[in-house]
Amino acid sequence: MFQKVLIANRGEVAVRVIRACKEMGVKTVAVYSTADSEALHATLADEAYCIGGPRASESYLNTDAILTVALESGASAIHPGYGFLSENVEFAQECNDHGLVFVGPSPEVMRRMGDKDEARRTARAAGVPVVPGCDLLESAEQAREEAERIGCPVLVKARAGGGGRGIRKVERPEDAPAAFETASAEAEAAFGDGKCYMEKFVSPAHHVEVQVIGDKYGNVLSLGERECSVQRRNQKLLEESPSPCPALTEDVRLHMEACARDLARSVGYEGVGTIEFLLDDNGNFWFMEMNTRLQVEHPVTEFVTGKDLVKWQLRVAAGVPLESSQEDIRVTGHAIECRINAETSDFRPSCGGITMLHVPNGPWVRFDSALYVGCVVPPYYDSLLGKLVVYSPTREEAIRKMRSALGELVIEGVECNADLQLDILSNEEFLSGNYHTNLMGHLYE
Amino acid sequence: MFQKVLIANRGEVAVRVIRACKEMGVKTVAVYSTADSEALHATLADEAYCIGGPRASESYLNTDAILTVALESGASAIHPGYGFLSENVEFAQECNDHGLVFVGPSPEVMRRMGDKDEARRTARAAGVPVVPGCDLLESAEQAREEAERIGCPVLVKARAGGGGRGIRKVERPEDAPAAFETASAEAEAAFGDGKCYMEKFVSPAHHVEVQVIGDKYGNVLSLGERECSVQRRNQKLLEESPSPCPALTEDVRLHMEACARDLARSVGYEGVGTIEFLLDDNGNFWFMEMNTRLQVEHPVTEFVTGKDLVKWQLRVAAGVPLESSQEDIRVTGHAIECRINAETSDFRPSCGGITMLHVPNGPWVRFDSALYVGCVVPPYYDSLLGKLVVYSPTREEAIRKMRSALGELVIEGVECNADLQLDILSNEEFLSGNYHTNLMGHLYE
Repeated sequence: MFQKVLIANRGEVAVRVIRACKEMGVKTVAVYSTADSEALHATLADEAYCIGGPRASESYLNTDAILTVALESGASAIHPGYGFLSENVEFAQECNDHGLVFVGPSPEVMRRMGDKDEARRTARAAGVPVVPGCDLLESAEQAREEAERIGCPVLVKARAGGGGRGIRKVERPEDAPAAFETASAEAEAAFGDGKCYMEKFVSPAHHVEVQVIGDKYGNVLSLGERECSVQRRNQKLLEESPSPCPALTEDVRLHMEACARDLARSVGYEGVGTIEFLLDDNGNFWFMEMNTRLQVEHPVTEFVTGKDLVKWQLRVAAGVPLESSQEDIRVTGHAIECRINAETSDFRPSCGGITMLHVPNGPWVRFDSALYVGCVVPPYYDSLLGKLVVYSPTREEAIRKMRSALGELVIEGVECNADLQLDILSNEEFLSGNYHTNLMGHLYE
Repeated sequence: MFQKVLIANRGEVAVRVIRACKEMGVKTVAVYSTADSEALHATLADEAYCIGGPRASESYLNTDAILTVALESGASAIHPGYGFLSENVEFAQECNDHGLVFVGPSPEVMRRMGDKDEARRTARAAGVPVVPGCDLLESAEQAREEAERIGCPVLVKARAGGGGRGIRKVERPEDAPAAFETASAEAEAAFGDGKCYMEKFVSPAHHVEVQVIGDKYGNVLSLGERECSVQRRNQKLLEESPSPCPALTEDVRLHMEACARDLARSVGYEGVGTIEFLLDDNGNFWFMEMNTRLQVEHPVTEFVTGKDLVKWQLRVAAGVPLESSQEDIRVTGHAIECRINAETSDFRPSCGGITMLHVPNGPWVRFDSALYVGCVVPPYYDSLLGKLVVYSPTREEAIRKMRSALGELVIEGVECNADLQLDILSNEEFLSGNYHTNLMGHLYE
């Protein structure tokens, strides 16, 4: 196992990784921006170094500063968390070039899965169904032809896309050329790569994803699925495992998990990763994309499988073989995560000092967070304050437990979305278990 | 299920029960002393009533006030928690007389098990080994004779004893008469009942206890055992499940659990209860006593069995039959609880206002507590600030997890025993798993 790990992140995920390291006897190095000098992750780590100004580009994306701290402090590995540098191929390569282990898959696998067009082709080659569509478009005219062939509505998507940028919906073939031009220009500006492809727009659909983990010896396990259809503007708000979706019958679930393992195995995947699928109401599913990192919503999988994903992520990165076989992985009970975001009731960000905090606790209640009374929520980063996660024998009990826990949560000093989460937990469509990615639209838009 | 439950307690256990009720859709009524008007349990409950002055005798033992609140508020049941009225036969009877369900066994079973001499005889009748000794002593001279017959050292014990009062150790038969006289006088003064019996003093011994639960239909389950040998002056400090004691082989464990079930079944036990055994290094064990209530250390059993004991306690009190059979109860992994007490490093109580609080969290870490920043720890009650409980696949990992969690815990405003717990977790005897009830003596006395 590593002697010392640098955590190139902040907030709850940095705290999560630091705790796992401490439990494994691994020393931790935190990095922080000038806005985070009093942040919990900087306090908990064995060592902490300021790496720049408050903006992410000055600090948490400042690869030179991070690599310098890693080398100077004698860390042997860097855990990128999620967001920031976690899917940055060049950074992963630089780590390797400096003799540091990047906790994640190889740069080549990251690149291959980060290119959405190549990821689609890789999935297809592994026998995994992909959303009907086409490969990279050469021209606006081709976009029109393919839109006609695929059948509208379709999505034009930049292969380098992310965070919802470089995507356009096309309702009629004749609108495809213009959509192609704007998506391409947006992607060129945002990612320096304007290449686009096209996919059928599947709706209504469920967003269901499978957690996988692979080691250096070709072993790949799947750890059940997560239902992530509660989204607002492509941002997940609430996740649960297992998926309550009636279209996800046992047969479909087994097939989806097998597809996820096949895809991961076909690229020699190392580390934890998530394979996202679209699922329709008839049990058809299609590969959407792969996230080559720890997911925000990993705790729901930890609750239902009993596996500590961060510890396993560190172990496989250090070359430890997976201890379990697929038959050892049992999903029992039901877990729900609510993302507690610092935002106003009309979805604007909220920041400031925390003046009061009461966190629910007790059996099978978990709150992953970097909050404490007196800490400051700065305006520079994402709005996630914490993740409230509960586990119960049944979905019905888990929902009641989450309602009770949300009702007990007190955060003063910033506004948060606990009431929105309570609304979701009382929504009939949500309660039915058969809800789609448009649920939040039904609720709020 | 009950519509409304009154919780006749304070602190972490009141909060624990209130949370369980909320998750079950049961309305809660808190009672509080004038010292607890800002206490968390009073805040969390749906209704809260002041029942008297700060001393327990004025409030939490004030049965008239509690019964009045229960009847006026329309509660249908009273949960006594642990301590205070939880083993008070008269109170349980009064509840029943007023048409209220006392969440616990029947008053008759409480009385039978509360009388330690009768409990011994009941255990023996159920085929459960009891510590070699004798029944009630009639005279000081008989004490000498029995001491000689049993073989010194022996303990003279008051049948009404509790909290370590009414117990005397006898090293030589000729000291027995005097020990009998003082133990009897002490018990007469403390409990109004001077009757004493005698038991062999088993040492070195392990304190191992079995959790049982019974319903109204004669079903009794055992839920594994807890190792509770880390004690200081008969107060448990740290508990774990399963017991790591090498003398507790699988055969011994199965026999001990069967004895516990037999005893519970023989008295028609309803509710959760704990049967305490002494275990020697050769795997011999003897019934010590039964606690007819929820135990402080119940969370370790919840972690390893996945069962919510408080919810089940409420369900069986409401007449719901146990859903599981004994074969469904599986103990997996390892759980440890550290009691976090408000005390100085030389074991004097500490009280005051909480000025800073940081609670560890993350996967399989639980902190049951009624603390919040700004709350006051009053001098009138027991010193328990909270219970830090962790769960891991193995004992070794659980110990590392607990060390890490204790290292993260910050409580300012009162002193606490976190450092003592860290000492225990580094003690070689403790780490070996083969430690006895004299462990703390080795460490500190």
